[in-house]
Amino acid sequence: MTGNGQEQFHVSKVLPSYWRVTFDNGPVNLLDPDTVDQLADLIEAIEHDADLTVVVFRSDKPGYFMAHWDFRSDNARIAAMRPGPTGLHPYLDNFIRLSKLPVATICEIRGRTRGAGSEFVLATDIRFASETAILGQFEVGVGAVPGGGPMARLGRLAGRGRALEILLGGDDIPAELAAAYGYVNRVVPDAEIEDFVDAFARRIAAFDKVAVTGIKELVDVATLPGNDEMAAGLTAYFATVGRPQHRPFAELLFKNGLQQPDGVETHLGTAIGELRQHGGGEEP
Amino acid sequence: MTGNGQEQFHVSKVLPSYWRVTFDNGPVNLLDPDTVDQLADLIEAIEHDADLTVVVFRSDKPGYFMAHWDFRSDNARIAAMRPGPTGLHPYLDNFIRLSKLPVATICEIRGRTRGAGSEFVLATDIRFASETAILGQFEVGVGAVPGGGPMARLGRLAGRGRALEILLGGDDIPAELAAAYGYVNRVVPDAEIEDFVDAFARRIAAFDKVAVTGIKELVDVATLPGNDEMAAGLTAYFATVGRPQHRPFAELLFKNGLQQPDGVETHLGTAIGELRQHGGGEEP
Amino acid sequence: MTGNGQEQFHVSKVLPSYWRVTFDNGPVNLLDPDTVDQLADLIEAIEHDADLTVVVFRSDKPGYFMAHWDFRSDNARIAAMRPGPTGLHPYLDNFIRLSKLPVATICEIRGRTRGAGSEFVLATDIRFASETAILGQFEVGVGAVPGGGPMARLGRLAGRGRALEILLGGDDIPAELAAAYGYVNRVVPDAEIEDFVDAFARRIAAFDKVAVTGIKELVDVATLPGNDEMAAGLTAYFATVGRPQHRPFAELLFKNGLQQPDGVETHLGTAIGELRQHGGGEEP
Repeated sequence: MTGNGQEQFHVSKVLPSYWRVTFDNGPVNLLDPDTVDQLADLIEAIEHDADLTVVVFRSDKPGYFMAHWDFRSDNARIAAMRPGPTGLHPYLDNFIRLSKLPVATICEIRGRTRGAGSEFVLATDIRFASETAILGQFEVGVGAVPGGGPMARLGRLAGRGRALEILLGGDDIPAELAAAYGYVNRVVPDAEIEDFVDAFARRIAAFDKVAVTGIKELVDVATLPGNDEMAAGLTAYFATVGRPQHRPFAELLFKNGLQQPDGVETHLGTAIGELRQHGGGEEP
Repeated sequence: MTGNGQEQFHVSKVLPSYWRVTFDNGPVNLLDPDTVDQLADLIEAIEHDADLTVVVFRSDKPGYFMAHWDFRSDNARIAAMRPGPTGLHPYLDNFIRLSKLPVATICEIRGRTRGAGSEFVLATDIRFASETAILGQFEVGVGAVPGGGPMARLGRLAGRGRALEILLGGDDIPAELAAAYGYVNRVVPDAEIEDFVDAFARRIAAFDKVAVTGIKELVDVATLPGNDEMAAGLTAYFATVGRPQHRPFAELLFKNGLQQPDGVETHLGTAIGELRQHGGGEEP
Repeated sequence: MTGNGQEQFHVSKVLPSYWRVTFDNGPVNLLDPDTVDQLADLIEAIEHDADLTVVVFRSDKPGYFMAHWDFRSDNARIAAMRPGPTGLHPYLDNFIRLSKLPVATICEIRGRTRGAGSEFVLATDIRFASETAILGQFEVGVGAVPGGGPMARLGRLAGRGRALEILLGGDDIPAELAAAYGYVNRVVPDAEIEDFVDAFARRIAAFDKVAVTGIKELVDVATLPGNDEMAAGLTAYFATVGRPQHRPFAELLFKNGLQQPDGVETHLGTAIGELRQHGGGEEP
């Protein structure tokens, strides 16, 4: 379904200063090695566009913004990827550079975005969510430390207590709770969010890029983790993900519909907790 | 209307340990060069008062706490101001020293406080807002990076996502949203806020100054940006504010009632976005 | 009533990976020198248990989680305590090591937890509160800087404005306000909180300790204050607590029922403010 080299980021240039990017990769919008390559290209294009001030990321996939990382990805391809401009693996390099783009980046979150999808939205500037949004970092439930920086980002965004609830609990975080915790900016009704985000983006699109860039640079100083801290997270991820003793559990998830629109994917965070306690599938 | 040297900060010494300061400068309470000079004097008086433990800042101006910086200020006078005790320009020196005063500072926010007015309230310790309060940093909409530290302060107070929404969106933030974002502490009904703040201040006024000062010093360590970070913001402000290509837009705002109680000033953040998109006034 | 060497932390080992600890010390659950010694032992046991991933702290005492530090404690015993593994006094050493435990720690807060009790819950990872919970740091009202780190922790958790309101106001913070401020994670109805926390803990108990530990280590980097900052708070506490001029006020509190389940202890934060303003008891 994924990793076929097809275009995943559909860019609509609404105005010279405003791009609207719709993500599209299979029935649940997985992230995979192609996503990493294509996101790197998109980020580079945004970095070099002198007219652009705002980019919106969105999805038309029913129920899904970005499900999570594709468990069937080619690990050898991932391992062989060359470092990006930060000197770090491109999975993380992308997210670090996404945060520092000289434009405002906004996520219009409808449906589920977990794991790598949550890391993506956390790497953008502003997160508006409809009541259909569900966020989460379920990695703890499959034995892994998340790799794309959510310890660093949620720690600073939601505070220690809520970051630890999200990351150690690994449960689904519905939109209202996500807004209460600062995980998203606010909830906008699903019927209005597309117009709301478009209007917000058009405001910024009418502003002076020098001001937008200058403001972001100083908010970056106040709020962004250093690259070393981000790198430590990716190292912990590679050290913990896909260990042999967790493979049977991953297969159990696939038997329950992982990476399909219905079944376990609809309530993945909750389901992982239940399956871990009652569903077995783990080798000693 | 402003810059006439009249007293803007009216100090009522309710108790030796409790001062109540009412700001008054023209029909919308603009900040101007006189404000800078008088605030410096007030801060110095507070720094040296051995009995004082709490200061409340408030406004009796209908609809306005502090509108924003006076666009008609004498720029030459501002440029010629001598550095304050921190070695920085007194506009910023005031706000840095205001945060570090050895007393609790509380804003009772009724009505609008944007731009420099928002920077003022962010420099105080505690912000209580009535439902009539509207906050915002509209500077991005007139082509400027805000100069009084809101990137540093909102980044730490509201988190990266909400700080960027406020600063890059430049829109009006009504009281309830401001409370949800941590921009103000909480909303207190307009009919009750004066008594509420007075009662809160009287509590602190009855406490031991040694304890108040000792607590603040350690919260300062945990939460205040360094002076260098604040200075970078002011440098960015002076580099971006009042550039020739934005002057026609400022004139358009004046034509729409800028710095008058009615007209554009009532919904300035929203209005700037609309005028930028539809109202023209910008030279290429 | 306290300081009698009886066991205060009752540990129920629900699962090898899940301990449930019920605190019990007199009618209002005071913290005292025995608490310090016993908590040090408990922390050491948790540090060395290879199977443990989650610990819940709770109380069965009606109306009280942990009231606060016992005003009648033996100060000579406290002063004579030997430093813990961090090199700091064990009161603070406990709280620093509690935060860094290689397990998830959760407080199920029913009833009041103020002063040292507030510092205890702030040192744990996740705070769930029922609507019966009341938190606060009333120390300012008895002339002291709190010693267990709330300036550092609340500053990072609730933001500067709300941290200063809590710490300089010294008032009672009911559960809903505590949740709005990030002081606790969220409010769970009192009739449900025991089951809710148990279900949350059982999730984590089913997860891989390597992932739990790896996640915490990186959230620690993003969110924990340094030991030096914590040490400065304890130094300020010892320099301010129990000064002679505040002793008559402490006696006034005892006359009003301090450390008893009813009377002043039910609304201690509010009561201290009222007694300071109207009740006298202070020597010049």
